[in-house]
Amino acid sequence: MKATVVVRPKQGILDPQGEAVQGSLRHLGFAVDAARIGRVVDLDVEAADAADVRAQVERMCEQLLANPLIESYEIDLQENGA
Amino acid sequence: MKATVVVRPKQGILDPQGEAVQGSLRHLGFAVDAARIGRVVDLDVEAADAADVRAQVERMCEQLLANPLIESYEIDLQENGA
Repeated sequence: MKATVVVRPKQGILDPQGEAVQGSLRHLGFAVDAARIGRVVDLDVEAADAADVRAQVERMCEQLLANPLIESYEIDLQENGA
Repeated sequence: MKATVVVRPKQGILDPQGEAVQGSLRHLGFAVDAARIGRVVDLDVEAADAADVRAQVERMCEQLLANPLIESYEIDLQENGA
C-alpha cells in the first residue's frame, strides 16, 4: 500500500533553508512573505491492512523519518490497489 | 495567500536519498518496497487573487524551487483568509 509522509519544521523552529529560499525568491522579484521547507516521503509498504500500514508508518516517522523534537509529520494513505 | 508546493523526483529518475531511506527502514525491520524523497515548500505570497498566486508560484517553481529536467511539482493554494 502506498503512503505519503509530509515532514515540516514545527512552528517557532528556525528554518534556515526556508529563509534562504525566501531571500532568493525576493531577490528574483517575487513578493514572498514567508517560506518554510519540509520533506515528502512516498513509501510502498507491505502490510495486512490500512490500520497496520498507518501504525508502521508512524513508527517509521518516530524512528527515522522525522525528528519529533523539531518536526511535525502528517501521514496520508492511498488505499487504492492495496 | 498561502501556497504549498510539493516537488518530487520524476518517475524513472534515480533517487539515491530515497534508496538510502528504504535501506535504513528495511534494516529497522519495516517491509518497505520503495521510498522516494521530495520537498515541500510552504509559501506566503502577496498577490491580487488566486490566479495571480498560482501564476507566480509556477514561475517560482521553474526559476528556483524545482529542476524541471528531473523533478515534477504540484501547487496547492489555501484560499482562506486571502
